[in-house]
Amino acid sequence: MARTAHEVDALFDALLALPDDPRRGLYAAMRHAAIGGGKRLRPLLVVAACDLFKVDRPQALRVAVAIECVHVYSLIHDDLPCMDDDDLRRGKPTVHKAFDEATAVLAGDALQTLAFEILSDPETHPDPFVRIELVAELARAAGPAGMVGGQMMDIVAESETFDLPTTTRLQQLKTGALIGFCLEAGGVMGHVSPAGRTALRGYARDIGLAFQIADDLLDATGDESVAGKALGKDAEAGKATFVSLLGEERARTQAGMLVDQAIAHLAAFGSEAELLRQLARYIVERDR
Amino acid sequence: MARTAHEVDALFDALLALPDDPRRGLYAAMRHAAIGGGKRLRPLLVVAACDLFKVDRPQALRVAVAIECVHVYSLIHDDLPCMDDDDLRRGKPTVHKAFDEATAVLAGDALQTLAFEILSDPETHPDPFVRIELVAELARAAGPAGMVGGQMMDIVAESETFDLPTTTRLQQLKTGALIGFCLEAGGVMGHVSPAGRTALRGYARDIGLAFQIADDLLDATGDESVAGKALGKDAEAGKATFVSLLGEERARTQAGMLVDQAIAHLAAFGSEAELLRQLARYIVERDR
Repeated sequence: MARTAHEVDALFDALLALPDDPRRGLYAAMRHAAIGGGKRLRPLLVVAACDLFKVDRPQALRVAVAIECVHVYSLIHDDLPCMDDDDLRRGKPTVHKAFDEATAVLAGDALQTLAFEILSDPETHPDPFVRIELVAELARAAGPAGMVGGQMMDIVAESETFDLPTTTRLQQLKTGALIGFCLEAGGVMGHVSPAGRTALRGYARDIGLAFQIADDLLDATGDESVAGKALGKDAEAGKATFVSLLGEERARTQAGMLVDQAIAHLAAFGSEAELLRQLARYIVERDR
Repeated sequence: MARTAHEVDALFDALLALPDDPRRGLYAAMRHAAIGGGKRLRPLLVVAACDLFKVDRPQALRVAVAIECVHVYSLIHDDLPCMDDDDLRRGKPTVHKAFDEATAVLAGDALQTLAFEILSDPETHPDPFVRIELVAELARAAGPAGMVGGQMMDIVAESETFDLPTTTRLQQLKTGALIGFCLEAGGVMGHVSPAGRTALRGYARDIGLAFQIADDLLDATGDESVAGKALGKDAEAGKATFVSLLGEERARTQAGMLVDQAIAHLAAFGSEAELLRQLARYIVERDR
């Protein structure tokens, strides 16, 4: 985990070299949000999925950074005063606090674009078929039928009371779609068989949901100083969560079952899938 | 122009069908911004450049809509209270006025993603080499070294006084890069020779600058009811523009010279380039 986190930072550092012109503040804001923080869960999933099929590591890392760009952009915009209005993220001031709101909007916008710039670059993969499939998958996962659609549902959740199926759908879009991309990317880069792809998709679906249940548990019962962000926000906003819908006890049991189920999807793989198995367990055991 | 505008609206209408779930507001906001308004200059440039090389029209139209997605997303975010704080756009309330700020942020985000989703779809072009080149060109033109970089410079321009070279660079990034993409897309789709590409790039560079000078002239001397947006904003914000730097007379002369120069780049083309020639003239003669 530490190695991947370090490599992700190094690649962001290279991609976001500060220009000596009036765009400097934009790059500084992108660096503030992208470098040196976070669990790097999505990059780890990409790298672990790529490892499974012996994908060249520098190529896997570029895809890992592309998905992290999308994740970081969504955090910057989510933290804005008109959205969740958060002051703290990854233990640092949020971008609109450290810079200003206009710069935060643009830094998020630019990080989304950068994700597609990275994926379309031949350095990511020499085969244009592979690159265009990665772009298509990311656009689907990040767009209105994926992450952004989930964010919209999340806003609606503040004024409407969602039931369990609708809350599950919200989370599948909001966080599940990007997590799905991480595993799908391994499948695309590794030229994996349809059966292998199905296994990866099953794993992704289960850990995606387990991740969100764990997030809801953290939001309800976690420690802000460890999490590096404000907690207890869902209850405050009156949003339905897995914890409010199932209760803490059942939510915890459900998350554990999903992890077992995720690991079961990897049965056809041997020790080369050990990192993915460990990540599945980490997802529900983490304290931040 | 009317035919292309109608086709762009029809394709947006098909791509943004309202879902019957809590994401409805997001799609409604995207439709509000994208359908039925604007000069559709960028789509027209794509279609005109593609016509030059007899590119299949439905394919050209998809690229035209992709670039309009990026343009519309940038307008939504530019109009936000933390940016230009505009109430009126294309003669209608801006998205954050008609909906709310959070929805406006997400609608912009989603339109950017949609652009890449459209370009990566095989319906846009059967050849993945062509699709990935379009994605790479759009990411370059829209990102921190293109449009968003120009928007950042535009923010800095409110507190610093830019000279003519810096103002020119700002505009080349802010509006020139996307206009450059429109012509480049024609070159990519039409498998154009290096000489043809150079001619298109020269044309794009000149009309891009002419467009911005004309915009500055409109901002300084135009009629708000015809323009469908607030004018006089640059002087109010104390920003250097081509009009403040050159004076109205010289700015007008300069725009005219650039149009002549743009048309001269098309000398190797015959009557098939007539639409591009007309568009160059329209760009400086328009009143909105």
